[in-house]
Amino acid sequence: MKKSYLLPKGFKSSGIHAGIKKGKKPDAGLIYSETPCDAVGFFTKNRLKSAHIMHAKKHMGGRISAVFANSGSANAMTGKQGIKDVENITAGIASLLKAKKSAVLAASTGKICKPLPVKSILKSLPVLVKGLSGSDKNFPKAIMTTDTTTKVASEQVNIDGIKCTITAAAKGAGMISPDMATMLVFAMTDADISKSILKEAAYDAIRISFNRITVDGDMSPNDTVYILANGMAKNKKVASKGRGYNKLKDALCKIFYSLAEDMVSDGEGSTKFIRINIKNAKDIKQAGVIARHIANSPLVKCMFFGESVNPGRIMSAVGQTFETVNLDLAVLKIGDAVIIDKGLIVMKNYAKAAKEMKKKKYEITLDLKAGKQDYYLLTTDLSIEYVKINADYS
Amino acid sequence: MKKSYLLPKGFKSSGIHAGIKKGKKPDAGLIYSETPCDAVGFFTKNRLKSAHIMHAKKHMGGRISAVFANSGSANAMTGKQGIKDVENITAGIASLLKAKKSAVLAASTGKICKPLPVKSILKSLPVLVKGLSGSDKNFPKAIMTTDTTTKVASEQVNIDGIKCTITAAAKGAGMISPDMATMLVFAMTDADISKSILKEAAYDAIRISFNRITVDGDMSPNDTVYILANGMAKNKKVASKGRGYNKLKDALCKIFYSLAEDMVSDGEGSTKFIRINIKNAKDIKQAGVIARHIANSPLVKCMFFGESVNPGRIMSAVGQTFETVNLDLAVLKIGDAVIIDKGLIVMKNYAKAAKEMKKKKYEITLDLKAGKQDYYLLTTDLSIEYVKINADYS
Repeated sequence: MKKSYLLPKGFKSSGIHAGIKKGKKPDAGLIYSETPCDAVGFFTKNRLKSAHIMHAKKHMGGRISAVFANSGSANAMTGKQGIKDVENITAGIASLLKAKKSAVLAASTGKICKPLPVKSILKSLPVLVKGLSGSDKNFPKAIMTTDTTTKVASEQVNIDGIKCTITAAAKGAGMISPDMATMLVFAMTDADISKSILKEAAYDAIRISFNRITVDGDMSPNDTVYILANGMAKNKKVASKGRGYNKLKDALCKIFYSLAEDMVSDGEGSTKFIRINIKNAKDIKQAGVIARHIANSPLVKCMFFGESVNPGRIMSAVGQTFETVNLDLAVLKIGDAVIIDKGLIVMKNYAKAAKEMKKKKYEITLDLKAGKQDYYLLTTDLSIEYVKINADYS
Repeated sequence: MKKSYLLPKGFKSSGIHAGIKKGKKPDAGLIYSETPCDAVGFFTKNRLKSAHIMHAKKHMGGRISAVFANSGSANAMTGKQGIKDVENITAGIASLLKAKKSAVLAASTGKICKPLPVKSILKSLPVLVKGLSGSDKNFPKAIMTTDTTTKVASEQVNIDGIKCTITAAAKGAGMISPDMATMLVFAMTDADISKSILKEAAYDAIRISFNRITVDGDMSPNDTVYILANGMAKNKKVASKGRGYNKLKDALCKIFYSLAEDMVSDGEGSTKFIRINIKNAKDIKQAGVIARHIANSPLVKCMFFGESVNPGRIMSAVGQTFETVNLDLAVLKIGDAVIIDKGLIVMKNYAKAAKEMKKKKYEITLDLKAGKQDYYLLTTDLSIEYVKINADYS
């Protein structure tokens, strides 16, 4: 797995400034495939949904030639006009690409309630289309909001002697949470794979990556993962679960996990990257609930930021879940230092735990001794910078 | 209702420094009633519970003469030793007061995992007992942790020509949330009221006060409300629900609501006091879930702190609840300014909303048009100071 943006065969992309954001930063991007693709999409569970999601759900069934993406406006809470805006923009792109109107999807990210500046975008579309290139590096920049770095990953696998490429670009940073974290992800592959099992592979990859991260516990109306497959590698079509499928799925898992890590590392104002391991929970639901309660507790997050060993806050967060665990059996480690053993603090390991907490990246492990289910969740601290970013955002 | 600490007839209290906190601030307090009291108690629902709660649950059935309180240590996650410590301290007090051992309760607040310095406390008990006075002002100070002010309230009511007093002292500030907010409350009355209906009145008063506040969504292992009634006003015993009961209940409601307001106003690092009104929810569960999602969203809280009009964050928080509400019908007001109408932003009221958000104290009102249930929840912003306090706490 490489942290690079290597476009698979037949894919081109571009990114320009289209007048959505102030200044001159790229805010509009386009992905295009020479051959129409099978496309699968996964969307936010927030009941408030961006207009692009309503639009995409109508068109995901057919084959897809292009995806328009923008930052600077979420196009959420923009009513019927918001949906018309998506239709106008995607129709404009379809006309320039000589594609079917229904073959162009969209994805927006940015401020809620802010309508898209459609006139300005429509005027920019010819430049956006003209910029399409197989060696483009601007698309990953065009989707950034409060991200401080682009997020890309690429992997190549050999399917029956044919090299197939999977590449994805993502944005994260804020409103990162439950279930599918807040983000846009655009994955492309030239592998020939049937749509139904591509969807299964993508679902499995999302489950252990984007569904395992939380920055602030807030879920956005825009979360979207698109996966496009154009088959241009001309491998023997992967139509069932076997070696080829497993290779592609493993590659997708690696790419998505890497992007998930990138999102957490670049979480708004974050100074820490924490992996929370839950061991021996009763079941996956219990493990997930407990991990999220720990990760989303403001007091725990401030403790991470302050590098202060205060394991009582973690255990108190666990106690709030009403999950039936016996806290008198629990063992909590910070890095390798056992800091809670059978529910009691282990003072002799305090210094070792304190040293671990000074690291930029570390793990905490809670053994619940309640069953056999393990789990993990990636999260950040709550910093002064997070508050500053989100107080001044508008 | 007066914000004063007027001890009811027969009650005395005291507060001293007993070596639990660094420095010289009061950290141990005592409440004593000349006549043993009927006592009712309400405790945290966190599965992690302070030792004082385990101890109190054993003894709440009998009559109570005194309550010991301390700040500086939560005596939580302290195992069997923690319970022994409570037993030793309450036994020491009982012996000095010539009361039954089982007639002394305790309540702790402060850092989790930190054992009580029992030797130092036992040595201080004679001074604490000697300090008992009907005009004491130190008890409310002794229970403060990150509180910046004492929290007291008092009300007098006339029961069949007899003046009865109800007074309470409280602490709040951090770990303030779900269900019963994080806090200690000590209420005393000289009214003669039967224990069973005192419990009902207290429950009703808690439901609309301490159960309606959230600072950070974190629930502590220590939350405790004690209500002591010694009957020394010698009114005709209030034994059933009638005029006398209603007067006492109303007084308790006023006192508890006032203390709840004080806790939120003094929430850790808070710069804003926000009352979230939910109108026309389907039912009380829906209203509560939605109000708490709004109040506990870090993005919404940062918006309050930053005084920025970003109502999409509020609607996005509502969308995360999975409650079946039609967001296209919702009306959101900031103060009197309608900022979302039928799911769409009302730009002409932006300036008015912005002006409201500059106030220290204001209300937001979300009309869900889903039913007939109204609700409210008191909360704060998330400030840079909150992060500082909780990063440096240990």
